[in-house]
Order: sequence, then structure tokens, then C-alpha cells
Amino acid sequence: MTDVHILGVGMTRFGRHPDSDASDLGAEALLEAIADAEIDARAVEAAYCGHVFQGMVTGQRILAQVGLAGLPLTNVENACSSGATAIREASLAIRAGEHDVVVAIGTEHLTSRFRGALTPDPSDPEAAVGATMPGVYAMRARRYMEEFGMTREQLALIPVKNKGNAARNPLAHFRTPITVEEVLESRPIADPLNLHDCSPVTDGAAAVVVMSDRAAGRFANGRTVRLAASALRSGSVDVEPTSMTFEPLTWATARDAYEKAGIGPDDIDLAEVHDCFSIAEVLRVEGLGLFEQGSYPTAVERGEADIGGRLPINPSGGLIGKGHPLGGTGVAQVVEVVRQLRGEVGDRQVEGAKVGVAHCRGGKAVGIEGAACTVQVLVR
Amino acid sequence: MTDVHILGVGMTRFGRHPDSDASDLGAEALLEAIADAEIDARAVEAAYCGHVFQGMVTGQRILAQVGLAGLPLTNVENACSSGATAIREASLAIRAGEHDVVVAIGTEHLTSRFRGALTPDPSDPEAAVGATMPGVYAMRARRYMEEFGMTREQLALIPVKNKGNAARNPLAHFRTPITVEEVLESRPIADPLNLHDCSPVTDGAAAVVVMSDRAAGRFANGRTVRLAASALRSGSVDVEPTSMTFEPLTWATARDAYEKAGIGPDDIDLAEVHDCFSIAEVLRVEGLGLFEQGSYPTAVERGEADIGGRLPINPSGGLIGKGHPLGGTGVAQVVEVVRQLRGEVGDRQVEGAKVGVAHCRGGKAVGIEGAACTVQVLVR
Repeated sequence: MTDVHILGVGMTRFGRHPDSDASDLGAEALLEAIADAEIDARAVEAAYCGHVFQGMVTGQRILAQVGLAGLPLTNVENACSSGATAIREASLAIRAGEHDVVVAIGTEHLTSRFRGALTPDPSDPEAAVGATMPGVYAMRARRYMEEFGMTREQLALIPVKNKGNAARNPLAHFRTPITVEEVLESRPIADPLNLHDCSPVTDGAAAVVVMSDRAAGRFANGRTVRLAASALRSGSVDVEPTSMTFEPLTWATARDAYEKAGIGPDDIDLAEVHDCFSIAEVLRVEGLGLFEQGSYPTAVERGEADIGGRLPINPSGGLIGKGHPLGGTGVAQVVEVVRQLRGEVGDRQVEGAKVGVAHCRGGKAVGIEGAACTVQVLVR
Repeated sequence: MTDVHILGVGMTRFGRHPDSDASDLGAEALLEAIADAEIDARAVEAAYCGHVFQGMVTGQRILAQVGLAGLPLTNVENACSSGATAIREASLAIRAGEHDVVVAIGTEHLTSRFRGALTPDPSDPEAAVGATMPGVYAMRARRYMEEFGMTREQLALIPVKNKGNAARNPLAHFRTPITVEEVLESRPIADPLNLHDCSPVTDGAAAVVVMSDRAAGRFANGRTVRLAASALRSGSVDVEPTSMTFEPLTWATARDAYEKAGIGPDDIDLAEVHDCFSIAEVLRVEGLGLFEQGSYPTAVERGEADIGGRLPINPSGGLIGKGHPLGGTGVAQVVEVVRQLRGEVGDRQVEGAKVGVAHCRGGKAVGIEGAACTVQVLVR
């Protein structure tokens, strides 16, 4: 059975792109990834495209745009884990021996689909009674404060860290560092979460080129990163029956990934995690086993999660700083981890990083009815 | 490398289901497929769900509904090829050695999403100038009549055949045979196509259980069918630049499938093809190499495509007779082929069938911008 390698990565600027659409952005990211892999576009054999709101055959439009129509392409959707799932399916196509060179694209043009915040589906019974995403995460934050004594100021340090990292990322949606005071004084969204605690509505795309051992040998560009595991799980109230402050789904998916990769949490040098809200980062890093339950807020206060800290979390800026174009997010996380492991990210570089993790979590926030979680392990 | 086997199939009645939704239908089909495979539901390791219009995490809702939340699940979308693509991805997960027992579900609840006919996306520039699906297929029909001398009566024989077959299929949307006169007198949709030339707006779901050699040996139920090939290609104007009457995309995908399966068109005993409109069946069987270009209308007239004819086409009733719940369609085709190869379909049985083919084609009708095509070969 072949290993799976990433030889090329590409990503658009994240932000508002009023003059382009999801396939324009996807095509831009794809062409960059192909160029970065230093291969001829004709070497690509198949493609996967992750997105949520972009309509039928979005991936096929991207292929047509870059002159690669004809290839097998599958659009995948797993809510906020859609892009990460595209990478997983690409890796399975490689491991099946079906193809040697496969691209995974994640794209989303949210600003043309929503005015302001994302609105829940009218058929969503929880949202109809006010349990929207911000509402549910706000309750989880309150509960976490109650259980573990986290202060509002500690929680605010997460957006401060992530927007600080984003200020060093030329592709990030937000490029201005913020202070705790600015978080606390920003517009209330769902108490205790304010505007700066929330990830923004972003347009953007990212792409990766994955290869089999055989192709990676043939196209070796000296910057190969191995995709050591790409784990996926679905969630529901059965999987996560009660806890507001711990995520069994994140932990189960992480356990699958660590086992496949033959690593443990202690081996990890950096992580990109799904910080759709400030509290979400706390729940994710603890669910991933990277910090003990209840310990992350004080660890952040001590600088442990900073670039240069014990275990940098979201050096790219995360969803809060870099932006959150749903389908683009999971692929962009992997792009960041690959660039970190290659040592290519300038003043946000995590020195000596060899093992990185990317985590996405989509669907319902407390797992009722439908959720998807991915954990990918990358090794240099 | 393991082969891929189908041990269980399930399908809801196709038609209008005002009291259920896409996940209810998917759950019903899935449970039937699992029961048909004669396995414990806990043997299922992963799932794929194909649909087009059912919103985020539809597949995860289905798993939650049947008590299988937690499994890896990927939703896939490839327009009308979505369900077929779910089967393809399931087969890749098997061949990758990632899982031994995988389910593929296709589902769609169209009557709750559209009033009457499907309406094109507002961003679709072709539809905006009147080139809707019926409009484009009508032009293709006219062109085919011009090039090959097909008569309007010959074209009408296709819905007559398919609704006749559907009358023998207890799960079909339409159960009443029709005559050529009824086709010709039905409401005009886009000249020369009338209402009976068009597939209906249908709710429905189907599911299959696929297995590796190892699992198929362990769970052998004596009714195993081998998925010998599951080919997928994307299309665009680059792939199909000029022809209105021949489908290079269908042919290229078929060639991939035949090569993988080690068969040729002459080995095929029956085919389920994407007859979204009467003319579409002509284009598909000729694109698949099953009938020479220009010959199908007279072959139908001679009864060659009937159950009991030389090469039965759409014995299930096809999209026109059985119904066309987009995501459900590709899986339901495979369900029909499997049941035919097992000899389980009563008075619509194709006697002695050993090799069957299922063909789907989604996206733009003449391949501009985004299309997806699948061809699957099943062998008993």
C-alpha cells in the first residue's frame, strides 16, 4: 500500500472577493498548487472539490476553467469539514491505486451567498428556537467558565493571539492585531461572545496536490510532506450525548488519526484547529488531547499556544484571523501546516516543526443530528 | 488489490412522499440494503451519501437516524451522477483497504424543494437565455431527427417502452402503460418534447452495501454481484465541443469502464441509462457503444431494447418511468442491475443476464462548463 504525499499547495488571499466567484478562486488556488508541485498540469489524474453553498458541479467548473475538464471529479460536502474531506477522499483514491496524482480543492464564496452572518436553514428546528451557532457556542463558553473558572479576559486572549498571527499572514482576512480591550468592547453577538470572538464571513479557496509513492518519487521537488493520516467521523446526539465542554467526536477522530499515523499528542509540533468561535479553540485543543481539559485558557495566558510557545495553535491566524470560507477552510489548514513543515512562512514560522495536525469540525455544534469531524496528520 | 462486491441493495418506492424527507427515505433504503445483505448494521464501517438539493450533512442525519452515527461519512454531489459517484467513492474506500464494508446511499426529496419542474440556478447564463434542460434536449432531438431521420413516432416509442417497464416495477413512480398517441397528445414542454418525453419530479432513495473480498467471503449470502468497474469523468465544452447528437463524454467514460472491467459493449446483457428525456436515451445508448449511431430509434421500433429483446434498455422503467430523484437515481440504477443479475425482478426479468451496465450523466446537457458522467459495470 502506498503512502500519500503532498507535493504542492496553493491558496488565494482570504477576504472579500466581490469580482470573482467560487470557481475563479478555486482555479487560482489549483493553478498555484500545481505550480508549487512543479508538475505539468497534465500530470493531474483526478480531483476532489469541497464546498458547501456553491451549487451543482462547482468542481467541474473549476477544472473546465483551468483546461482540465475530462478528469474524474467528485464534489464533497461535510459542512465545515468539506475541504478536509476532499483531501481525505483524494488520499483514498491514491491508496486504492486508482490514481497517482490527485488534487483536492476547497472553495467558498460566502459574501455572494449571505448578507452579513450565515443564516440557518429554515428547516433547522434548533435554530428556529434560537439555538444558532453563536448561541450554542455562547452557552458552551458560559458552561466552560462555570466548570473550569475561565475568565472572560482569558477567552479574549484567543482572538488576540489568532488575529496577531493573522497580522503576519499576507493571505489572511484580517491583518490588524487586536487587544483584549478591543475584544471586550466589540459588538455583542451572543453573550459572552462578541464580534472579535467570531470567525468572519470570508471568500477564499485552497488546493493541494497529493501523490502516491511512485509519483512522489518521479516528481520529487525536495519539499514533500507526508499525509500520515486523514481521519473522518460523523457525529450526532448519540455520539455526544451530554457534554457542552468536551468533544467526544473530536477525540474519537483524533484517536483514529494518531493511531493511523503512529503518533501521540506529545509528538505534535503545531496544530491548526477549528476556531469558528474563541471558545471553539478551547474545546478543540482539549478534544485533540493537546492540552488537558480545563487547562487551555491558562496555557494561552502563559503564551504556550503562541508561535514560539510550547505548542503553537493556529499560527496561520485560524478561522478567526485568517477567515473561514467553509469549503476552503480545511484545505487552507493543510496548506498552512505543509508550509510550516517546509519552513516557508517567514515571521510566523514554528521553528523545527516536523509533525503538524489539522482539525475541522462541521455541522451542529453540540452534535445533534448531523456533524462531521476530520483530523489530518502531516509529517515532514 | 481487492475486488469490490455488492451484497445488499435497498430502495424506497419512487414517487411523491409528502410525509417524509430525504433522510427518512435514505434511512429506509439503507436499512433495507443492510437487511438484504444479511449483515448486522454494526458491520458497516463507513458511508457515502449522494444528493443534490438536500442541504448540509444530509448523510450524517441518515446515519444518526439508523443508529450508525460516528462512522466516517462523506456527502458527494455530481449533479444527476451524485448517487453513482457515492458508489464509486465507496468502491475506492474498499480498494484502498480503508474499510471492508461500506454503504452508498442516494437520496432526494424533490417535491419539497421545487414546485413543478426544477428551476435553473439564477446564476446560470444559458438558462437565463432560455437554454433550460428541456430546451437543450429538444434542440438535440430536432438535430437528431434531421441527421438520422428519426420520426416523432419513433421517439415516442421510448417513453412507451419505459413506462411499460415501469408498470411492471412496484417501486416505480408511474405504473400505467402509455401509448404513442398519449405521448404525442401530452402537453408540449419544448418542441418536439411533450410531457411524456420528460422524467418526472420524484422523491426517493436507494442504497447498496459494498464489500471487499475478505468481507464478501465472511458475509457471503449467495447473491453477490461484483462491481467490476465504476468510472467517472467530468465534462465541459472542451470535451464536447460541437456535437449535439453524440456524447464524447459518455463514450470516454464507458471506455474507461469497459477497460477496467475487461469487457466490451457486446458482453452487456442489459443497461440502465440516463433517460432524463426520451432523446437522452438515444444519445446514451449510442454513446455507450451499445447501438450504432443513428440506429437506436429503429432498433426500439423492432423491439430490440425491450425486456426480452436483444439488449434490454431501462428494464426498471428508467428515469422516465421509474422516476428521477436526482441523488437517488444512480444508486437505484445499480439496485435494478443487481436485482436483474440475481434474477429477482419477476415479470420484468431479463433472462440469463450476467453483465449489466448503469450510466448517469449530470450537469449541463451539452457539456458547457460543468458535467459529470459515470458508467458502472456489474457482473454476476
